[in-house]
Amino acid sequence: MSNAPLTPQRILEAAEETLRRFGPDKTTVVDVARALGVSHGSVYRHFPTKAALRDAVAQRWLEGVCAPLRPIVEDEREEAAPRLRRWLECLSTTKRRMAREDPELFTTYHKLALESRGVVDEHLETLARMVTRIVADGRARGEFAVREPEAAARAVLSATSRFHDPVHVSAWEEPGIDAEFEEVWALLLHGLATRSAPTTSGE
Amino acid sequence: MSNAPLTPQRILEAAEETLRRFGPDKTTVVDVARALGVSHGSVYRHFPTKAALRDAVAQRWLEGVCAPLRPIVEDEREEAAPRLRRWLECLSTTKRRMAREDPELFTTYHKLALESRGVVDEHLETLARMVTRIVADGRARGEFAVREPEAAARAVLSATSRFHDPVHVSAWEEPGIDAEFEEVWALLLHGLATRSAPTTSGE
Repeated sequence: MSNAPLTPQRILEAAEETLRRFGPDKTTVVDVARALGVSHGSVYRHFPTKAALRDAVAQRWLEGVCAPLRPIVEDEREEAAPRLRRWLECLSTTKRRMAREDPELFTTYHKLALESRGVVDEHLETLARMVTRIVADGRARGEFAVREPEAAARAVLSATSRFHDPVHVSAWEEPGIDAEFEEVWALLLHGLATRSAPTTSGE
Repeated sequence: MSNAPLTPQRILEAAEETLRRFGPDKTTVVDVARALGVSHGSVYRHFPTKAALRDAVAQRWLEGVCAPLRPIVEDEREEAAPRLRRWLECLSTTKRRMAREDPELFTTYHKLALESRGVVDEHLETLARMVTRIVADGRARGEFAVREPEAAARAVLSATSRFHDPVHVSAWEEPGIDAEFEEVWALLLHGLATRSAPTTSGE
């Protein structure tokens, strides 16, 4: 391993492994360097500060959340409503799977991300841009009746935070969580949709 | 003070004061009894276990959240939409005020409430019943087009958790929080409302 050239990629993998073993409070750049069999100076050549390394680790983790969402946004043949639903379900299930498979590592990454405020803000912007694109597409198709797709997209993300914001991790294994998602989705979809289907109760 | 009869009310006031000083981890029944100048046996006659006292303290705190909401629910002369909005704003501002005025005590109560799961569940049921009543009233007036007021009420509470669930306390002082509430409210109101105003895109 130590014969391979020292790339940012290899440093990030070693940092993840070290974080997994020691947790965010006890992981130092020296630990990461030791795991790679290099001097800490070699690590600093790629990541000039501990904060830079931490941000890069958080970014890599959040990219793992974003990656499966992108093909859903791109799939423009599909109508916007089912696409938005798939996107929200994918975001929720990715987070839930991560939290379920390795709760300790999930907590570690969440804590790390909270310290990388700039990285988290950029991540939230990325999510908002993806939802904005689906909503704007839905408006262009006449499916959605929203005035400002960006504001509506932010509202959709805020209104579904129970299902994807890690502060709610303890709710994700509750038995009623899927039913709750259905109820919120029904309300949001009704809120986004064009008023093309008058109900019997309408005047 | 110690000449007054020992009532549950006086014990709860002393418990709050003791919690404020020592925090939830270090507060014991003996501390509460000492603050009242009575034996811990006298406290146990009213609250047979430490858990019973903790639950009663949590309940009292949550009642402080519910009390200002009740008159809004009762005010049936007002239309359901502005009443629901007032109710949500009241819930959010009460929580925000509590968190802002005494952040440490707010954290203490939140921690305490998490340990009194049954009390919190009952509180959430109370909130859901209040919103259900406003939503059902809105349906009866022809303002809202929901099939199941209870499901819609739960969805409204879930979708607004960013503004009232204490896990989001760190977001409450963010500059964009009021604009975010407006965006979510617009989407929810559109989702609840009867489809009485057909748009030009409708068929």
